Amino acid sequence: MDQTRLLQQLAFALEVDKEKNVLRQTRLSGNGRRENDAEHAWHMSVMAYLLREYANEPIDIARTMIMTLTHDLVEIYAGDTYAYDVEGQAGAHEREVVAADSLFGILPDDQAREMRAIWDEFEANQTPEARFAHAMDSVQPMMLNDANDGGNWREREVTRSMPASRNAVTRLGSTVLADYIDTVLDKHVERGNLIDDSAAGEQDTLH
Amino acid sequence: MDQTRLLQQLAFALEVDKEKNVLRQTRLSGNGRRENDAEHAWHMSVMAYLLREYANEPIDIARTMIMTLTHDLVEIYAGDTYAYDVEGQAGAHEREVVAADSLFGILPDDQAREMRAIWDEFEANQTPEARFAHAMDSVQPMMLNDANDGGNWREREVTRSMPASRNAVTRLGSTVLADYIDTVLDKHVERGNLIDDSAAGEQDTLH
Repeated sequence: MDQTRLLQQLAFALEVDKEKNVLRQTRLSGNGRRENDAEHAWHMSVMAYLLREYANEPIDIARTMIMTLTHDLVEIYAGDTYAYDVEGQAGAHEREVVAADSLFGILPDDQAREMRAIWDEFEANQTPEARFAHAMDSVQPMMLNDANDGGNWREREVTRSMPASRNAVTRLGSTVLADYIDTVLDKHVERGNLIDDSAAGEQDTLH
Repeated sequence: MDQTRLLQQLAFALEVDKEKNVLRQTRLSGNGRRENDAEHAWHMSVMAYLLREYANEPIDIARTMIMTLTHDLVEIYAGDTYAYDVEGQAGAHEREVVAADSLFGILPDDQAREMRAIWDEFEANQTPEARFAHAMDSVQPMMLNDANDGGNWREREVTRSMPASRNAVTRLGSTVLADYIDTVLDKHVERGNLIDDSAAGEQDTLH
């Protein structure tokens, strides 16, 4: 029995407990408190399992689940950046790479490599599993924000084209779910929760 | 495209958001706030993946992960009962069965049956996956309580024999992890965080 190996694994398991303190912008349904990364990851993983029939390509569900469960761990050190915060996004990936080196380095070497590869795969978004995980990363907060009548969008004065652009990524993983999100976005434009910038966009092309 | 099916699945996904409001007795590391069921499930599932080499028998990791992610969903309707609350445990399973009927009934029939079967399998604890999931259900809060110097045990004046009895269940899933927990329990008896009832237990057998 290699006690060192077990202690490294448990040290990592304890360290990632901190993900429960990384807050996101999304609020729980019922206009509740802000959600944290661990809750978001749990929800994404459950949804990946239940909605796997809608993946555009066959997926390895175990790999998709561990990917969704761990895709945001680097934010323990690098912090969360809101999806539509353009300034905040600058340098975010670089900060996360440094964080990944530190965090996964707590694990035994073989598992450090394995978990890092899973995170790199998510970030690169070039496999069916990563594409479906990205779809869950959008559908889960979209579902909560929809249930809260688009509160996140109103607070930030988000325009329709911002989640629509994100939905193009969702479409790579699941056309069914991207179609569904389009109907949700249309509804919130009608309700005034999302700013309709389609006309402005057309005008811009005239200049 | 069967829109009804998708809407049932999304209705379930939204309903289980409420698991994030079901509080447990365990505190986050650093003597933080109380943990909720969704965070606990996320942590168990990550740990199941990382510690799967210690399962006594080969396990299907995808099934083990979805089992850990969903094993406490019934508590959305039935509430959480502390592991060492003997009075509270009375009738807990019956309440949970009623909750399972309502909650899983939100899903399309085939998935309602599937998710119910996974929960029943966890409760029966007769498969390698269920046994390892139960091991995670003990190791995860044990790890946090250990990091918090046994605060949960001190608050409740827990005796050594109570987690020791629970550790017998962990041992069915993983002897390695049960051995590890025994050393943790010994440490906390020495520190006075767990009441040593081994002598009292011996006296009882004399009556």
